[in-house]
Amino acid sequence: MTGSVEKGTLYVISAPSGAGKTSLVAAMLEQDPVLCVSVSHTTRAMRPGEQDGVNYHFTDRPTFESMIEAGDFLEHAQVFGNYYGTSQSWVEKTLAEGRDVILEIDWQGAEQVRHLIPDCVSIFILPPSPEALHERLTKRAQDDHEVIQRRLEEAADECRNALAFDYLVVNDDFDRALGDLLSVVCAQRLHISRQGPRQADLLSRLT
Amino acid sequence: MTGSVEKGTLYVISAPSGAGKTSLVAAMLEQDPVLCVSVSHTTRAMRPGEQDGVNYHFTDRPTFESMIEAGDFLEHAQVFGNYYGTSQSWVEKTLAEGRDVILEIDWQGAEQVRHLIPDCVSIFILPPSPEALHERLTKRAQDDHEVIQRRLEEAADECRNALAFDYLVVNDDFDRALGDLLSVVCAQRLHISRQGPRQADLLSRLT
Repeated sequence: MTGSVEKGTLYVISAPSGAGKTSLVAAMLEQDPVLCVSVSHTTRAMRPGEQDGVNYHFTDRPTFESMIEAGDFLEHAQVFGNYYGTSQSWVEKTLAEGRDVILEIDWQGAEQVRHLIPDCVSIFILPPSPEALHERLTKRAQDDHEVIQRRLEEAADECRNALAFDYLVVNDDFDRALGDLLSVVCAQRLHISRQGPRQADLLSRLT
Repeated sequence: MTGSVEKGTLYVISAPSGAGKTSLVAAMLEQDPVLCVSVSHTTRAMRPGEQDGVNYHFTDRPTFESMIEAGDFLEHAQVFGNYYGTSQSWVEKTLAEGRDVILEIDWQGAEQVRHLIPDCVSIFILPPSPEALHERLTKRAQDDHEVIQRRLEEAADECRNALAFDYLVVNDDFDRALGDLLSVVCAQRLHISRQGPRQADLLSRLT
């Protein structure tokens, strides 16, 4: 337990709204104590049931824009006229502690993160069909018709960028999709880039 | 079910003798019907309980050497004075049918296969300690002292090449090691290089 802590892996998980990303990420966190999720900053209005600092760091536009200028964001984007961003210092500190960090961001943010942190692992979650997606998006009673329409268009736009990701998981069956996501995390930890340093002592005793 | 069959993935699994590779691969095959294992050709003597065509294709030296000259082997090596080799035509045919193929070969063979098939996925299995390895190697009553000594030296030699593999699995707990191996296979199937073509229809309907 002495010596340097091994750096964690950064996971970027994207999906069209309605694919089940948030529930899947919550279930991943429950099953794997080494995983944690970055809480984004946003300028959008708080929804019923949301908590500042838990779902998002809710921030006003002038503050967000001064953070952009200060280079505080690993990635940021405007979606439906609202800003979303990920704190670079928090991500770097948490990876350095050996935690694996999940970013739940859109394809634009994923592109920025891939550019800055090329060894991140990116996963795209697809709904099983357009019909299932439509049904899930229209069930959110708090959104009006216009918001739903915009979200359907945004979902199609999001899916057009799926092939830029490292892994593609279809959320047809929740438990299977969860197992798939955990397999990607497990395999990543078994990769020689992680295991080589971790098993160095065992390897030297065997040779 | 029409159109071209998606090509399978080639897995190369190596380990020092006594690390539990054969039992783990047998359990992988039981759990995953898409996986199959290549039966090697060898010139070594058949051991009690072994069957020709099941454990190995037992071959005499002149036949083996003429197969080498004919280019019939994807990889071949001499270990303890015996030849071992993998039939190239069988591997290619089976991958083309969409099966994932496991080669249980040593580090020399792995090196040859990596060179010929760069997109193969290689996994090295380690025993949990030198003591556990020694205990397992000396328990094989059918081997005499000299064979055990050679096998211990060969095990150390094998482990010196572990860092050339893509993944490293420690067989401390059998079920966990099995889960680790199956996670690597699962993650590989979720990789965009496999999922992109497989989900092309769903993606086009979503965009």
